[in-house]
Amino acid sequence: MARNLLQGSYAGRVWFVNARRDCVAGQLAFRTIAQLPDAPDLAVICTPAATVPGLITELGVQGCRAAIIITAGLDAPGPDGHSLAEATRVAARLGGVRVLGPNCVGLLSPGLGLNASFAHRAANAGPLAFIAQSGALTTALLDWACARDIGFSHFISLGNALDVGFPDLLAHLATDTATRAILLYIESVSDGPRFLAAASAAARHKPVIVIKSGRAPEGARAAASHTGALAGADDIYDAAFRRAGLLRVDTLRQLFGAAETLTRCRPVRGDRLAIVTNGGGPAILATDAFGAAGGHLSVLSPNTLASLDAFLPTIWSHGDPVDIAGDAQPDRYAESLRVTLADPQVDAVLLVHAPTAIVPAEQIAAACVPVIAASDRAVLTCWIGGEAVEAARHCCTAAGLPVFETPEEAIEGFLLARHQTRLRQALQSPPERVVPFSADLCRDLRTLVAPVLAAGRQWLTEPEAKSVLALAGIPVVQTVTTRNAAEAVAAARQVGWPVVLKVLSPDITHKSDVGGVVLNLPDAAALESAVGAIKQAVGHHCPQARIEGFSVQRMVDRSTAQELILGLATDATFGRFALFGSGGKAVEVLADKAVELLPLDRSSATALIARTRVSRLLAGYRDQPPADLTAIAACLLRLSLLAEALPELCELDINPLLADEQGVVALDARIRLGTLRSTADA
Amino acid sequence: MARNLLQGSYAGRVWFVNARRDCVAGQLAFRTIAQLPDAPDLAVICTPAATVPGLITELGVQGCRAAIIITAGLDAPGPDGHSLAEATRVAARLGGVRVLGPNCVGLLSPGLGLNASFAHRAANAGPLAFIAQSGALTTALLDWACARDIGFSHFISLGNALDVGFPDLLAHLATDTATRAILLYIESVSDGPRFLAAASAAARHKPVIVIKSGRAPEGARAAASHTGALAGADDIYDAAFRRAGLLRVDTLRQLFGAAETLTRCRPVRGDRLAIVTNGGGPAILATDAFGAAGGHLSVLSPNTLASLDAFLPTIWSHGDPVDIAGDAQPDRYAESLRVTLADPQVDAVLLVHAPTAIVPAEQIAAACVPVIAASDRAVLTCWIGGEAVEAARHCCTAAGLPVFETPEEAIEGFLLARHQTRLRQALQSPPERVVPFSADLCRDLRTLVAPVLAAGRQWLTEPEAKSVLALAGIPVVQTVTTRNAAEAVAAARQVGWPVVLKVLSPDITHKSDVGGVVLNLPDAAALESAVGAIKQAVGHHCPQARIEGFSVQRMVDRSTAQELILGLATDATFGRFALFGSGGKAVEVLADKAVELLPLDRSSATALIARTRVSRLLAGYRDQPPADLTAIAACLLRLSLLAEALPELCELDINPLLADEQGVVALDARIRLGTLRSTADA
Repeated sequence: MARNLLQGSYAGRVWFVNARRDCVAGQLAFRTIAQLPDAPDLAVICTPAATVPGLITELGVQGCRAAIIITAGLDAPGPDGHSLAEATRVAARLGGVRVLGPNCVGLLSPGLGLNASFAHRAANAGPLAFIAQSGALTTALLDWACARDIGFSHFISLGNALDVGFPDLLAHLATDTATRAILLYIESVSDGPRFLAAASAAARHKPVIVIKSGRAPEGARAAASHTGALAGADDIYDAAFRRAGLLRVDTLRQLFGAAETLTRCRPVRGDRLAIVTNGGGPAILATDAFGAAGGHLSVLSPNTLASLDAFLPTIWSHGDPVDIAGDAQPDRYAESLRVTLADPQVDAVLLVHAPTAIVPAEQIAAACVPVIAASDRAVLTCWIGGEAVEAARHCCTAAGLPVFETPEEAIEGFLLARHQTRLRQALQSPPERVVPFSADLCRDLRTLVAPVLAAGRQWLTEPEAKSVLALAGIPVVQTVTTRNAAEAVAAARQVGWPVVLKVLSPDITHKSDVGGVVLNLPDAAALESAVGAIKQAVGHHCPQARIEGFSVQRMVDRSTAQELILGLATDATFGRFALFGSGGKAVEVLADKAVELLPLDRSSATALIARTRVSRLLAGYRDQPPADLTAIAACLLRLSLLAEALPELCELDINPLLADEQGVVALDARIRLGTLRSTADA
Repeated sequence: MARNLLQGSYAGRVWFVNARRDCVAGQLAFRTIAQLPDAPDLAVICTPAATVPGLITELGVQGCRAAIIITAGLDAPGPDGHSLAEATRVAARLGGVRVLGPNCVGLLSPGLGLNASFAHRAANAGPLAFIAQSGALTTALLDWACARDIGFSHFISLGNALDVGFPDLLAHLATDTATRAILLYIESVSDGPRFLAAASAAARHKPVIVIKSGRAPEGARAAASHTGALAGADDIYDAAFRRAGLLRVDTLRQLFGAAETLTRCRPVRGDRLAIVTNGGGPAILATDAFGAAGGHLSVLSPNTLASLDAFLPTIWSHGDPVDIAGDAQPDRYAESLRVTLADPQVDAVLLVHAPTAIVPAEQIAAACVPVIAASDRAVLTCWIGGEAVEAARHCCTAAGLPVFETPEEAIEGFLLARHQTRLRQALQSPPERVVPFSADLCRDLRTLVAPVLAAGRQWLTEPEAKSVLALAGIPVVQTVTTRNAAEAVAAARQVGWPVVLKVLSPDITHKSDVGGVVLNLPDAAALESAVGAIKQAVGHHCPQARIEGFSVQRMVDRSTAQELILGLATDATFGRFALFGSGGKAVEVLADKAVELLPLDRSSATALIARTRVSRLLAGYRDQPPADLTAIAACLLRLSLLAEALPELCELDINPLLADEQGVVALDARIRLGTLRSTADA
């Protein structure tokens, strides 16, 4: 630590404090913090765990406002029974000291010459900020970046984050002029709303890329609703990152690629990529990867084709990819690149080279660099191979160009750069205005659930849930609560035959699993026998369940309608979210769903629908007309407003919501109230 | 070329022939092939295109049996109007000369010291064979491999492959003792059956990995059947590689990884991978990648845990991944690795290291190498970073260990090695015996289609198609052909109400698209009015269509049954294949399908079903019992046998086949006969 602090070009003074030594790293050391001549701007603590809380208190008294705790082992209990970490947190709060760590590698701010870390090497100064929850990844990325001449504004190891976390650092880096882009390695987020706020603000200013580990689903979630059970923790992280405008990558290789792209790639203005190459194979691989992501190569303009024809050998590809043949000399590369970059149909160029015996790759790189410098378009380079292309890679890196090792990774770089441009544009459009429920409606909704809350019940009955939905403006099938067969028959006459009969029991959540639902009852005789059948089946499957009666509803026969699920549930970290997907009995087997954090607006509701497979069916096919997508999106929007009106609403399933060209109707609904708990508590 | 030939350690003689020079590359040259003192074993031709056919003839006369044509441009016409390539092919066949190329980089066989290529560098000798259809990828992989000390038995650039292609080379390499594994870069396969035969034989002996480019779907295929339209060309390549036992990778990075794994990784005996690491973050990334592929880390035995407890610091992870903490010294690494490798619960170990300031990575590598050498288990290593881990990587490479740069790529390496072991085991089990249709049944089938062929018709009517299926043992709904409303009513009385009415027209393939189908007709009045409605609708949509009558079938009401599609179609390269998937009207929108080349057996039919999403529904869920999977697989098997019995059968759709717990029934079927043409000709 001491060597790193002294070896950097840090312009300020560095003082050492050591209780036992006079001298640290060749410098005189103070015995105590109190002896320091002034309050330090930053303290770095690498002392035994038990000493940490006291040192933080002393630093606070001294007027120091920031400390990095490198020390690990603060989970151990302190003298008062609380953990040392807790004692440290209290000391920090009382003393007004902000703390990074404990158990971290430290902080590097190369622009200041500050290396307050025990990393094995220093970082280069540059435009990237990196914040990591893993020390090992910190040093690994640092080492990788140095080899590629990638520099950093700040390089921060979070450690156990007892005080300073992602939100504080993101808030700072959002407006830090030395930082052009931010990379995050996240294992978990503790305070969802604060994280979202800070990440959104940062992403509004600059690209923020995240790699999140711990994708493996934790043990089955004890959720009582389909919505809660269907949405995995990782889906919610995905939704949170999307909501904040962060781009998630899946692998360390992609994170490396993102660092390369964000550091070096010029802004990409449009989708039209051209490839200039000396080899068909690599160009096809790049084209495949681009096509798999939905991309289409640029269509070169006739002028460009004519210009290329004028000097390229006749076997050139006569289109994009611009394959200039294996025997290409540097001037052929440079001229092809110049002509292609000048085409108004081209937004960016990917240069792909495979080594040949004709000419060393670095001569080609040297010829191309000035051509690229003279253009304002984004150019990405891919030099495939080993030793033969090393010098070319260095040449391009030195010229500030993005360099990739494989065609597919270069395409990922282009897509990331393109995504960032789109995101910038999207963030500039004004947010959609959503009109909340009226005060009257909110009052009516509260009146409806008040008796349930007063009775201490969590689950609304099916008819209660449908009343809530109806009030919120979501079409529901008429449903009557009855206590026995006679009442059921009367109700059926009221709603009209045929009917559906369902058991009403506070102890049964999945009615059809226990024989508690009979469809399509044509007359009184069938209805009466169904009452008996349900009693018997439920008695068999759930002998302990209390049967309070039966709900009767008109059988809805919309045979070509899609069965959908719409739901709300609560995530422990990020709060309430909406789920949309294929519904019906097979909902969990199909697992065709997408989630989005609340609140929704019309465009996020529409995008949510579009992320499912069932959306392709909803769009219509053959003689099947499109379903009323506007009505479905309106339901999602109303669920979001309903959640706003009822803070106690913690789980809601509408399954199925039937949707066809005539509109939508909810056939079944379940609503759970509670304090705002996570689904994991359900 | 001359320099490469002379610079290698080739022990035989090298003669040069040049029409104008006395001396080539410092050696005396003959003027003509006829002057050569003997027949060369191999000729390498780098002369102008026009001279090539004549030279091949001269070589044949001289007794030479093998030539490499480096020359490009043989597509140009020769003096007789045919292309130079065609003239060369004829000359080669007449002269008995096998030809590699033209337009190729050549051939390197480092074990022989032979470098008959114009690659920019020589290859190291080693166990890998590489065959590529792209010159650029040849040199790129060569360069990459040299930097990683990966060696080759044969390194072959195919060029335009006018004679020698993948089948010849695969057949040779299958039994070549110098070749332990084969890598292929394929752009297209010309002779599907020959390729399949040779690739299957090779994969039986050693791992064959393929990267296939050109995934982008070509323009819409003009297929008249759903089966033909649903199966993309790339799906068929996938099926062909799977059938032959080849493993397909998607990116150049994965091909590089495969080369590393196949060259260096010991056989992996089981699925239980343990991770030994100095950093939590990288280990979680590896665990995530493993989990995403369905893998589970090993559960360490109590003995192992106790042994590790004895010397690891208390903060170690106490399980797999074995996180030995960031301050691990070489001896802690070595001992942890030794203990983990000795655990009988562990089949393979992945060592993941991130650089630290504690100790140089190469000291850790040096300490671990002897421990690994003393074990017989597979060990993969991952050294993340740049300069700080270079020496450690070299140390492991020199020790013959697989080295990866990221945790996810190391996991891919493990999975590939594991896949190879499984494949070896699977190939050792005897093939399933499939009983073909009896001679009587085949004769009956031929009798059924004979009138259609005689009439020169391609499409069977729906009732004809159903008769064929019924004869083949596939349950079909009873269907009667009628000419008018009166006959239709009589037929309905015969099959039983309610009925389905469909138009019969040789000009209509997708009946429901043109209003040619009416479901669920309860009585004669409804049926008669449906006849009128169909006539009107068809007259409106297809005024030119000839209406020959109506088919009448019993309305099948199996409301909980799944609608499936089963089909056969013909691929231009690989011949006939079967398709299975979600059926019904939305078949193309759902695009939930899988394909398999014919012939099928019971296990490949079952595997085909399992590759679709609908298979999860067929397995049963909630109160929905499992569908009769055996009956579905039997239908697929019978389709395969039907195709064998009827070589003229080129397209077949069963859509839908209803499947539930009671079995299966085909509601609609379409069959096209023809000469064995590709679907692209349809």
